[in-house]
Amino acid sequence: MAADNQQERLDNSWIAGFVDGEGCFHVSINKQPKMSLGWQVLPEFRVVQHKRDEIVLNQMQKAFGCGQVVVNHGDRKELRIRGLENLNSVVKFFKVNPLKTTKRENFEIFAKIISLMNQGQHLNQKGLREIAKLASKMNRQVPRVV
Amino acid sequence: MAADNQQERLDNSWIAGFVDGEGCFHVSINKQPKMSLGWQVLPEFRVVQHKRDEIVLNQMQKAFGCGQVVVNHGDRKELRIRGLENLNSVVKFFKVNPLKTTKRENFEIFAKIISLMNQGQHLNQKGLREIAKLASKMNRQVPRVV
Repeated sequence: MAADNQQERLDNSWIAGFVDGEGCFHVSINKQPKMSLGWQVLPEFRVVQHKRDEIVLNQMQKAFGCGQVVVNHGDRKELRIRGLENLNSVVKFFKVNPLKTTKRENFEIFAKIISLMNQGQHLNQKGLREIAKLASKMNRQVPRVV
Repeated sequence: MAADNQQERLDNSWIAGFVDGEGCFHVSINKQPKMSLGWQVLPEFRVVQHKRDEIVLNQMQKAFGCGQVVVNHGDRKELRIRGLENLNSVVKFFKVNPLKTTKRENFEIFAKIISLMNQGQHLNQKGLREIAKLASKMNRQVPRVV
């Protein structure tokens, strides 16, 4: 049987290959009146699988050392990693274990946004504008906020 | 840019991870009156991607040392590997570089069918029945032929 041992350690290159197929780097920019600029930048890394492969998501969570495995919808589960510190680990991981498909282009934009957030650029108007511009290149659903 | 070098060699674990997400092991059993038993067993391994990632399919073809990259439909391309000798290489590859998701269960059945075909079991009634039974476990569309 596949992956019936929760303790099995996944190879980093395997993770990169699996994420090339199944992973998603996403940045949403949400209206949030309580924040000083009125917008919240929410970067997220996720991998969605049918619940039969939840074990693999748990193993990936362990490999990254962060994130949560939660219900996506219906029979689907997702490993979801949020939070700047956690996403810095994710970015570092894929710098060392590079993606091979064109998903890498999305990742590079994601990494740039994380780097800008590390500098606090999401907290000023100019930086937020730059982040929104970058995010719009990776996800056409991101609204043009500024 | 990702994978803009056709010569880049893919890591075997990366391939296993990518196939865990995107690969398909399939055995169809088709009515073929010209064959002595009236049925043809057609095992196939394939990986489908949008054409923007055709380079990765070419790199995988190179890694396996066999197969063809052809149009799947519309904007989609597929690496398709057929033929017993080629599929023996594929099976050997995934014995050494194991899948981690439940797709591995499909692969194990596929490997068993390839092994039976190596013994010529698809050419006699009893063997064909056994192959059809195995194939029905991995793909419910396979007709119950015998």
